[in-house]
Amino acid sequence: MPSPKLKAKSLKSKINRQNPIGVFDSGIGGLTVVRALKRILPNENIVYLGDTARVPYGIKSPEAITRFAFEDTRFLINRKVKLVVVACHSVSSVCLPELKKSFSVPIIGVIEPGARAALAATKNRRIGVIGTQATITAGTYERVIREIAKKGKPSKDVEIVAKSTPLFVPLVEEGWVDNEIALLVAKSYLLTFQAEGIDTLLLGCTHYPLLKDIIQNVLKKVKLVDSSTATALAIKKILTERDLMRAESRQPDYRFYLSDITPNFAEVGRRFFGEAISNVVRASIAQ
Amino acid sequence: MPSPKLKAKSLKSKINRQNPIGVFDSGIGGLTVVRALKRILPNENIVYLGDTARVPYGIKSPEAITRFAFEDTRFLINRKVKLVVVACHSVSSVCLPELKKSFSVPIIGVIEPGARAALAATKNRRIGVIGTQATITAGTYERVIREIAKKGKPSKDVEIVAKSTPLFVPLVEEGWVDNEIALLVAKSYLLTFQAEGIDTLLLGCTHYPLLKDIIQNVLKKVKLVDSSTATALAIKKILTERDLMRAESRQPDYRFYLSDITPNFAEVGRRFFGEAISNVVRASIAQ
Repeated sequence: MPSPKLKAKSLKSKINRQNPIGVFDSGIGGLTVVRALKRILPNENIVYLGDTARVPYGIKSPEAITRFAFEDTRFLINRKVKLVVVACHSVSSVCLPELKKSFSVPIIGVIEPGARAALAATKNRRIGVIGTQATITAGTYERVIREIAKKGKPSKDVEIVAKSTPLFVPLVEEGWVDNEIALLVAKSYLLTFQAEGIDTLLLGCTHYPLLKDIIQNVLKKVKLVDSSTATALAIKKILTERDLMRAESRQPDYRFYLSDITPNFAEVGRRFFGEAISNVVRASIAQ
Repeated sequence: MPSPKLKAKSLKSKINRQNPIGVFDSGIGGLTVVRALKRILPNENIVYLGDTARVPYGIKSPEAITRFAFEDTRFLINRKVKLVVVACHSVSSVCLPELKKSFSVPIIGVIEPGARAALAATKNRRIGVIGTQATITAGTYERVIREIAKKGKPSKDVEIVAKSTPLFVPLVEEGWVDNEIALLVAKSYLLTFQAEGIDTLLLGCTHYPLLKDIIQNVLKKVKLVDSSTATALAIKKILTERDLMRAESRQPDYRFYLSDITPNFAEVGRRFFGEAISNVVRASIAQ
């Protein structure tokens, strides 16, 4: 018979396992992370928060992004999540360490998993990174890739070429992901990477997986690393290590909160998540 | 000798005349209205508020846009403006009547002046309208143009073709206003207007004047109506009628408030305003 102490502990971890994974993003781009989570961790309950009233974060100042990020994280923690996924690249690159220091639940961003996946993919140690202006200006991808490369055994140098591609997000939201304009915009932003001789390109924004085909079309020989998938794999590892995986096969629960229910959410949401989204609730975030 | 009552009144109107014109927009696009005001009313003091922390409004719900608009208007009224210009097309088309009802200072939007200017310009009574998704979905331009046309003497029918052009704003903000991509996007959105036989196109967004050349290139024979200029002319009329024009030639005062000082404001602001902007203060809007 287990001791009362052990029993209490196992009850506690059972509750914890049932608790949802919380995912937040400035808008609906983070749904590509939820999509990857659904594929890789199909039993997990998920609470998604999209700050659609203040989207996009990428063009705003570090101070504003940090304030929004704390409000978003508190919103999810109030919904008893067992882990917080910062699906927003701008937040992940601007203030993830501050968030981690301020809350007790594990918080994972999209930068480190993406950086690790890019380093695992490259052969010639020349990696390209694309993202919003805030992500690229903050330079976090470059720093994190270098830090991880330095700790590697054997430690090796790595060349990183980073470039902001601000028109990619509105292109995706317009649904222009496979027309002549998308191709021209992609060429305009990406051809420079050919001259740089990169063999791996990290898609540093949750919107970009929807442009994968056209990006691959421009950079035919370059390996594309999608940070949404890399992040979902990293979360699986954390949940396994901490014994926090939900084992039940009963249909998991998905909840979607948006700070503004935009008129075209149904259509755009489906495009990002890969299927229709019901169960959307308007959230009041700012406190 | 004037009676004390008259003297008090004239003192009051003197104070009122000195008070600034308040202009607000969701972001920095409204600076094209300030630019037009500077040209047409060079003696006026101006207070500008750009809600850059929550920009853009155009993709958000009518409820969110209305809440933001009331907060923006209160912010300007607290700064003792004599008139409020709603430079944001989304706000002007979604909730201008509510704003007018709720405040005592004159409030002027960009829709009606633009509509009047388009009606004055058209010969064949076929008008095209372009704008953000919220502006076009709300259908306010169509309604207002029809209402004004109906009241005209003689009253005449008018055909209106409206179309949202969501990629124009990010193109302008990227500074891509005269390259191949801008031309292709403009063609993709606008060529349909040729088949419709319009002779006048109303640029229903403050960003669009910066794309005037490329739009004219696609629609060579179509007359373009710029609502920023139309609005500045309408304000001149109101100030004249109400005897609120600032007569002094002493250098007018311009103040710029932004809810978020974005990293590239200096560069983008200059592009919209036509000259460098100093005197920018971070504003806390929400109450």
